[in-house]
Amino acid sequence: MTNERYESGLARLREIDGEAGARVIESLQSIAPDLARYTIEFPFGDIYQRPGLDLPSRELITVAALTALGHCEPQLNVHINAALNVGCTPGQIVETIIQMAVYAGFPAALKGMAVAKDVFTERGLIDD
Amino acid sequence: MTNERYESGLARLREIDGEAGARVIESLQSIAPDLARYTIEFPFGDIYQRPGLDLPSRELITVAALTALGHCEPQLNVHINAALNVGCTPGQIVETIIQMAVYAGFPAALKGMAVAKDVFTERGLIDD
Amino acid sequence: MTNERYESGLARLREIDGEAGARVIESLQSIAPDLARYTIEFPFGDIYQRPGLDLPSRELITVAALTALGHCEPQLNVHINAALNVGCTPGQIVETIIQMAVYAGFPAALKGMAVAKDVFTERGLIDD
Amino acid sequence: MTNERYESGLARLREIDGEAGARVIESLQSIAPDLARYTIEFPFGDIYQRPGLDLPSRELITVAALTALGHCEPQLNVHINAALNVGCTPGQIVETIIQMAVYAGFPAALKGMAVAKDVFTERGLIDD
Amino acid sequence: MTNERYESGLARLREIDGEAGARVIESLQSIAPDLARYTIEFPFGDIYQRPGLDLPSRELITVAALTALGHCEPQLNVHINAALNVGCTPGQIVETIIQMAVYAGFPAALKGMAVAKDVFTERGLIDD
Amino acid sequence: MTNERYESGLARLREIDGEAGARVIESLQSIAPDLARYTIEFPFGDIYQRPGLDLPSRELITVAALTALGHCEPQLNVHINAALNVGCTPGQIVETIIQMAVYAGFPAALKGMAVAKDVFTERGLIDD
Repeated sequence: MTNERYESGLARLREIDGEAGARVIESLQSIAPDLARYTIEFPFGDIYQRPGLDLPSRELITVAALTALGHCEPQLNVHINAALNVGCTPGQIVETIIQMAVYAGFPAALKGMAVAKDVFTERGLIDD
Repeated sequence: MTNERYESGLARLREIDGEAGARVIESLQSIAPDLARYTIEFPFGDIYQRPGLDLPSRELITVAALTALGHCEPQLNVHINAALNVGCTPGQIVETIIQMAVYAGFPAALKGMAVAKDVFTERGLIDD
Repeated sequence: MTNERYESGLARLREIDGEAGARVIESLQSIAPDLARYTIEFPFGDIYQRPGLDLPSRELITVAALTALGHCEPQLNVHINAALNVGCTPGQIVETIIQMAVYAGFPAALKGMAVAKDVFTERGLIDD
Repeated sequence: MTNERYESGLARLREIDGEAGARVIESLQSIAPDLARYTIEFPFGDIYQRPGLDLPSRELITVAALTALGHCEPQLNVHINAALNVGCTPGQIVETIIQMAVYAGFPAALKGMAVAKDVFTERGLIDD
Repeated sequence: MTNERYESGLARLREIDGEAGARVIESLQSIAPDLARYTIEFPFGDIYQRPGLDLPSRELITVAALTALGHCEPQLNVHINAALNVGCTPGQIVETIIQMAVYAGFPAALKGMAVAKDVFTERGLIDD
Repeated sequence: MTNERYESGLARLREIDGEAGARVIESLQSIAPDLARYTIEFPFGDIYQRPGLDLPSRELITVAALTALGHCEPQLNVHINAALNVGCTPGQIVETIIQMAVYAGFPAALKGMAVAKDVFTERGLIDD
């Protein structure tokens, strides 16, 4: 079942998401291993391999979208970590989430910021 | 206040949702008993009485919709249980949730699968 | 950085949201104090100062919107408290949430009612 | 098939929505007359009969919810007309839509206001 | 760039979506041919190839999800056509959309039914 | 009523959105001039003045969010134009919209791409 998309996707997933990505994939093995495989192959084996945007830009637009959608806290946690992993600054992440108040409303921005605060605190970037 | 729609709806709710449905209705009694009554009368007394789709098909489209909407975990839990109660296989439920990655994105599908994993584990259908 | 909008917004926030509003603002200080400032200035310094609707009406439309959006429980908790603080009755809040079953579906209404139940129980308005 | 809920719902629909409501019901006859019936029975035969909120308040919370959801322009058109029919002022409707910028973002509010502008223009309430 | 997933996906797309699917793919060629390719490879080359649900069931859950999301009329048009192409009856499609009134509210169901009416009329299944 | 935020916001709006932004503001004058003022003051006078992200990055995260939300075509049109105005390449905009297939599903990405195609065609960036 493994193939080039899977292998390059898994490498990219590890590079970007680290431990958190591995946990998502692992958690699917007992119920839907094919969803784990698609998650590796399509987002990470196809999209995050594309040259048109650098990884920090890709993670910021993902943080923007997940904050705007408003119901994706677990994935937002993974991607705020990923944004930091690929070189985004905490300040860029905070700016991205603040701007979502304009496009998706203050509740979505406040929820997104609460997730960012959890991640930043866990990584020792802020005291709380 | 009881009537034919209420009586047939309550019977259908018990058939489909079992204990979980009873808990939803019970939880409303102290604050909004009329919302409990409407929940019995309209979804279960009207819609789930209709002949045009069998109950397993009705539950799969509900699982699809709740997964796609992305913010309905408690109701998704109830309806994944309901799908199993009326004869859907775990495999059909997993397929339905995987397909939502196409139409509502991977975060919605991953959240839906996490709810399915909880239900399947609680019912001893998978080990975790 | 303080100004007239900020000062009048902070007074309005305290009047409407009380302790809960103060906690939201406080929680932002270590990560995004500017989002705290915007939350005070725009919603409370601009919008909730406007004469065209009284405060109880403003809180009911907010409860309606947050219930319909479906993914804003923390903010819905704050605004159900706020609605009570500015003179809405528990019955008006319950009616507003029930009506959302028509426009956003039963799951959204049931989730909104669960938040209302928490608030009403904490304030001793219902027994649970 | 007609019954008390249907009859009182139809009367309420005519009172609130006038021509626009009649057109919605009529448009369903060739494809899903039962959805027309449910639309009369549940929203108008059950919910809009309840005493806990007056009709202008019910229409304002509906305008709020439909604006916040963002994808319901035809229904928002019907309900802005309905709000005017039951005695809401144009100013109250405008205030409700402006406030949604806070909770659902500026795009939702701007889209809602464009619908209000169409309705107000058609009714001769503003020049355009 | 073509491969097995692409070839089997294209065949499945033609089988399910016919002309409408071809138009979606064609419309992307001048701006984002890779999105056309992914649309063929992932939904149709991966998901709609899976054995766990038959095609009519897959199309009904797609109709359910797109109706519930509420902002996907063009895709809903394609998939109501697709549902008919793979053997769903008009009655099953109507039932699926009616049921969404429960889970996503009446506006979403009414919008979905308007799309179904367009499709059924265009295919001569109903008079209008 | 004008003030520093309004003046700097109006200048920023003209710089970013050009004609399209002016039309949005103009269209509000007959119904809700205060919503026009807030649109200038908060998004453009506060947020788009902030130094933490450059304007091209701000426009890409806005394109991402509006594509993901799925119901904001008019605003997405304005912001795809704005992205081009502040120096984003068509390729970066296309990449941003493609990536939304992962997080919000293919319908949202396809709808976003249709808006981009309109804008690119109107500006002579692609033939259609």
